[in-house]
Amino acid sequence: MRKPEATRRQFLQATGLTAAAAFAGARIAAQPQLPGPPAKKLGFAVVGLGSLAINQILPAFAHCRHAKATALVSGDAAKAKSLATTYGVPESGLYSYETYDRLKDNADVDIVYVVLPNSMHPEYTVRAHKAGKHVLCEKPMANTPQDCEAMIAAAKAAGKKLMIGYRLRYEPNNMAMIKMAREQEFGKPKVILCEAGFSIGDPKQWRLKKALAGGGSLMDIGIYALNAARYLSGEEPVAINAISYTTPGDVRFADGVEETINFQLRFPSGVLANCVSSYGVGLNRFRVHAEKASFELEPALSYSDLRMRVLRGGTVELRSLPERNQFALEMDHMAECVQGNAEPRTPGEEGLKDLRAMMAIYEAARSSKTVTLNA
Amino acid sequence: MRKPEATRRQFLQATGLTAAAAFAGARIAAQPQLPGPPAKKLGFAVVGLGSLAINQILPAFAHCRHAKATALVSGDAAKAKSLATTYGVPESGLYSYETYDRLKDNADVDIVYVVLPNSMHPEYTVRAHKAGKHVLCEKPMANTPQDCEAMIAAAKAAGKKLMIGYRLRYEPNNMAMIKMAREQEFGKPKVILCEAGFSIGDPKQWRLKKALAGGGSLMDIGIYALNAARYLSGEEPVAINAISYTTPGDVRFADGVEETINFQLRFPSGVLANCVSSYGVGLNRFRVHAEKASFELEPALSYSDLRMRVLRGGTVELRSLPERNQFALEMDHMAECVQGNAEPRTPGEEGLKDLRAMMAIYEAARSSKTVTLNA
Repeated sequence: MRKPEATRRQFLQATGLTAAAAFAGARIAAQPQLPGPPAKKLGFAVVGLGSLAINQILPAFAHCRHAKATALVSGDAAKAKSLATTYGVPESGLYSYETYDRLKDNADVDIVYVVLPNSMHPEYTVRAHKAGKHVLCEKPMANTPQDCEAMIAAAKAAGKKLMIGYRLRYEPNNMAMIKMAREQEFGKPKVILCEAGFSIGDPKQWRLKKALAGGGSLMDIGIYALNAARYLSGEEPVAINAISYTTPGDVRFADGVEETINFQLRFPSGVLANCVSSYGVGLNRFRVHAEKASFELEPALSYSDLRMRVLRGGTVELRSLPERNQFALEMDHMAECVQGNAEPRTPGEEGLKDLRAMMAIYEAARSSKTVTLNA
Repeated sequence: MRKPEATRRQFLQATGLTAAAAFAGARIAAQPQLPGPPAKKLGFAVVGLGSLAINQILPAFAHCRHAKATALVSGDAAKAKSLATTYGVPESGLYSYETYDRLKDNADVDIVYVVLPNSMHPEYTVRAHKAGKHVLCEKPMANTPQDCEAMIAAAKAAGKKLMIGYRLRYEPNNMAMIKMAREQEFGKPKVILCEAGFSIGDPKQWRLKKALAGGGSLMDIGIYALNAARYLSGEEPVAINAISYTTPGDVRFADGVEETINFQLRFPSGVLANCVSSYGVGLNRFRVHAEKASFELEPALSYSDLRMRVLRGGTVELRSLPERNQFALEMDHMAECVQGNAEPRTPGEEGLKDLRAMMAIYEAARSSKTVTLNA
């Protein structure tokens, strides 16, 4: 009996109605609307308990309608146990990297959320798929396009979903920016400006180790600018220029990762994008210049307090939308895709496209030549 | 007796004091400060009565302390006569392009302000120098670096001043931006973003004729972004990338001038700039990202209503300065340099530097390669 019920619930959820709400609306319209019964939540295993998991992802489950934390994977058992207590994860859901493959036997885990250093994404994604799990993997998907392709193949072989954690694609202001651009509310977009950066701290962190991070600011923060230029244009770049600078002697970049890399993109329709990626200074803005107005988000990629503005004819109109927890939206989307057997908005193929473009950006900077790509 | 008096007055002006103010301050300190006597104004011949001269330059003389319009040069005698009446230019100061060289005999003209289409700047500058006049020439200085060099040589041969009309270099907000960047009020600048553009109208105007304009948006409006990147960094670019797009079939660009050209600059200190130049969309911002804060002007290059902001840690501080007439400041500077025998802040050499960089920008876009320059 469970399956038909689940299917029906999914249908109601897909139409935006819960069973209770659908009946309540018809029968007792004059009464205050009662919340529907809790949706079935899918279980997530969070793999890698660094600052992103601790400060953002684990607290976000409280805001989820469809996702709950049911397992934690960490090399630090004490840390995992402490976080499990805080977030109500059962002790049976605690894993080390050695026992990771036993997730296969944990029916409470539907989805594995890979929050490890970049270079570990492919291995832990593929192993999760082999354990029969769906995977939500943090950005960047991997350090090379080849790894991305292997991850996509593993998901396909397992018949499981693979989604990349592009949280901004689930964030209301960024979604509104996309709508304004695509529906040409202010005419045709012509120039896109995307800047993402921060002054990176601790020189010992994995983000500054080339083997783990795959590169410097571009892999970690510049990817937001690249991804935004792609989602705001709705196109894939066909020509890329890049120019890079890293402060000599700055200990943070001693392992050969780049500090700042600025890139230019040309899209097939003729939209041009100028982008900045930096570990040296704060940058946090996406802007579209269309024929009749410009519209922007600044901050554009913070976890909160995003601000959207429309600039035209000397006036500035504030359009910010009510705040939502970005990670909760992202995890709920993944859970709903699994429940409804739908393709995630940011599947593995999306991560692969960014990796291909990032490799081209690095190649353009290295070769001092425009790199051309097929759209 | 006129010469020593003029020299003394120049000295007082150079020290920021007029004769009356210097004495008044000592003798009657308790009384309200009276304005000093009017400064001696140098006479300007305005050459080319297009919209810039009519709407901006001629009205600006009313705000000048050291400059007055004493001659007009135009191919349209009726237009010249009408404007002469409005602005108090004597009929003896009206010239056609055929009678232009007779400026030599007009002692009321000290400085010739060349406001012609770009391709005509060299000829009319050189002829003015040969007539023994100082020259203020609109930007871009010329269509080629070779022409710029010839203009500089003509000024030198005549022993006269040559200044390029970079009005923003005399505008208080832009000056304050330079000070904030150079004095590192917010730490070392790392990334500079300069965007200048507008949607160009009448397809028949000279700005859209390649032979007259020397190019498209870059020559006319993008030059502001380039010049700002140079004056905000205080350096000359050593590496340049560029990417261009012009809407096919757009009648405005039928003569082969570019619509949008985006360029990247690397400066010797490692500062990177991303710039946009467009005839397709409105763009009007200069921003510096320094280690501790960002600061910007938007609008940055309008004739009025510039807005300066400092952005740090989620706060935005408005720092706009009282408005001044930019052309009046520019013309007064030229007059003061002539009076005090000082080098203008934006001499011919400054115009030449932009032309060399613009040629490199076009070459980078054309060749799809990074163009390197000597600092």
